[in-house]
Amino acid sequence: MEEINKETIVVWLKDLQDRICTSLEELDGKSIFKEDLWERPEGGGGRSRVITNGNVIEKGGVNFSAVHGQTPDKILKALSLDKADFFATGVSIVLHPNNPMVPIIHMNVRFFEMSNGTWWFGGGIDLTPHYVIKEDASFFHQQLKNACDQHDPNYYTKFKKWADDYFFIKHRNETRGIGGIFFDRLSKDESHSKKDRWAFLQSVGNAFAPIYVTLAKKHLNDPFTSKEKAWQGLRRGRYVEFNLVWDKGTKFGLDTNGRTESILMSMPPLANWEYSHIPARGSKEEETLNFLKKEIDWVNA
Amino acid sequence: MEEINKETIVVWLKDLQDRICTSLEELDGKSIFKEDLWERPEGGGGRSRVITNGNVIEKGGVNFSAVHGQTPDKILKALSLDKADFFATGVSIVLHPNNPMVPIIHMNVRFFEMSNGTWWFGGGIDLTPHYVIKEDASFFHQQLKNACDQHDPNYYTKFKKWADDYFFIKHRNETRGIGGIFFDRLSKDESHSKKDRWAFLQSVGNAFAPIYVTLAKKHLNDPFTSKEKAWQGLRRGRYVEFNLVWDKGTKFGLDTNGRTESILMSMPPLANWEYSHIPARGSKEEETLNFLKKEIDWVNA
Repeated sequence: MEEINKETIVVWLKDLQDRICTSLEELDGKSIFKEDLWERPEGGGGRSRVITNGNVIEKGGVNFSAVHGQTPDKILKALSLDKADFFATGVSIVLHPNNPMVPIIHMNVRFFEMSNGTWWFGGGIDLTPHYVIKEDASFFHQQLKNACDQHDPNYYTKFKKWADDYFFIKHRNETRGIGGIFFDRLSKDESHSKKDRWAFLQSVGNAFAPIYVTLAKKHLNDPFTSKEKAWQGLRRGRYVEFNLVWDKGTKFGLDTNGRTESILMSMPPLANWEYSHIPARGSKEEETLNFLKKEIDWVNA
Repeated sequence: MEEINKETIVVWLKDLQDRICTSLEELDGKSIFKEDLWERPEGGGGRSRVITNGNVIEKGGVNFSAVHGQTPDKILKALSLDKADFFATGVSIVLHPNNPMVPIIHMNVRFFEMSNGTWWFGGGIDLTPHYVIKEDASFFHQQLKNACDQHDPNYYTKFKKWADDYFFIKHRNETRGIGGIFFDRLSKDESHSKKDRWAFLQSVGNAFAPIYVTLAKKHLNDPFTSKEKAWQGLRRGRYVEFNLVWDKGTKFGLDTNGRTESILMSMPPLANWEYSHIPARGSKEEETLNFLKKEIDWVNA
C-alpha cells in the first residue's frame, strides 16, 4: 500500500488543480487560466490560477499552495503548544459566473501537519446561488451526500450542519448561500484511519468539477435582465461581507501575512451595495432570501 | 455658562447633521437625503440619512445616533469594569462621489459616557482620493491643522499620526488614503477640561462641510475616462477591505448586534476587484499608490 504523506498529498492536489482547470476551461469555452507561481519568504509557495472575462466565468481562481515554517502563534496557542513547525497544503476555489442564474461556488480541500506529529484534513464545498432554484439545490446536496456516504453514513449530516453554521452572515442573519459541506481537523480516530480521511478528501475534490459543470451548463444560456444582474451585484456584496468579516480562513491569512492576492481571489469582479434594499413582495429575490436559512433539508426539499 | 451634558451634546449633533445635509444637498444640486428613523430595541435610536445617484454624490450617508443601555462586555473588559450603563452619541459620514477626481471622505464625531462617570470624545476626518492631488492634500491637512491649532498646538501632529496608523490596510501595506486626523478617548486631563474637549469636537464637526464642498466643487466637472472610473472601482474595493477587515468601529458594530444598514452605509455603491492589478509605470495611478504611505508631511508637501 502506498503511504500517505505530504509528498503524495501534494502530487495528488496539484493533479486535482490541473484536472479542475481543464474541466472549467472546457466549460467556459473562451477564457483560459493564467498561472502565477509564487514563493513564500518563510517557506514554500503556490500556484495561483485565475480565469477572467470568460463566457461562463467572469472571475475565478483555482489555487494550489504548499507552505511550511514555524507554526503561527494563534495555532500554537489553540493547541497549547510551545513551538512546532507546520506544513499546510490545499486547493482553494471560488468562481464568480457572469450569468446571475449560474451560482457562485467555493471549494477547499486541505491538509495540515506539524512537526509534533499532529495532522488533520479540512475543507468543503458550498454553493451561493444568486437565485435559489430548489431542484438545483437538491441536486447539489444529493451529490455531496453521495460523496460523503461512500465514506461514513454520518458525514453528510454532520458536515452539512457544519456548513450551515460556518457560512452564516451573522450581521445579516442569513446564510451565505444554500450551504453544502464543511469539515475541519479530521484526524485519526477509532473509526477512521489516515487512509480513510484522505480517501474522503479525494472524493470531495473529485466531486467538485462534475457538480459545477452540470449546474453551470444547465443555466449558462438562461436569459437575464439588468434587474437580475443588479441583484447579482448585491448578492456579491454579501459574499464580500462574509469573506471579509466572518471567514476564519481569510481573516487568518490576512492577519498572518499570507499572500493577499491569493487570499482575496475570492472577491467578485464587481459588487454592489444599496442602503436597505428590500425585494418586492412575492418576487424571486424575496423567495431567494427566504431560502437563506440554516437547517433546510435540501436533499429532500 | 451652559453645562455640557448628553442632552446639550445631542442637540448640537442633530443640528450639525442638519447643517451638513443642507450643505451637501446644495453642493449636489440634484439629489436630496432620505431619512430613516430607527429605534434600538435595547435603548435609543438614530436618524440615518442617505443620498444616492446625485450629481456629485453617487452614494453617501450622514448618520446621527444616540444609544444607551448596558455597556457591551468588550468595553467593560477593556476598562476592567464589572457592570455599567453607557450612553453613546455621534454623527458619522461617508461620501462616495461619482467623479473619480473627487475624493471619498469620512467623518465621525462622537461622545461616550458611562454610569460610573467615565466619559470621552472621539472622532476624526480623513480623505481617500482615488487620485492623490498634492495641492488638495495640502489644503485638506492645512484645514484640519487650523481646526486643531485653535485648541491645542499638539493636537494636529498627534492626531495626524493617529490617523496614519489607524487608516492603514495592513494586508496591502498601504494607507486607506491621505489620512487626516483621528482621536479617541479624549477625556479630562490637566490641560483640557470637558469644555475644551467639546469645543474641539465642535470645531472638527464644523470643519467638515466647508472642506468637502471646496474640494468637490474644484473637481466635480473634471473630465474622466472609463479607465479612470475603473480605477475608482478598484480603490473602492480597498475601501471595502479596510472597513470590513480592519475598522474597529465597523467590526465592533457588526459583532455587537449594531444596526447593520447604518454601519454599512460606508460601503460604496459599486466596487471592483482584479487579481494582482499593477498600474503602469509612470501612470497617475502608480503615483497615487506611492502617496499611500504613512508619515507624509502633507501640510508642507
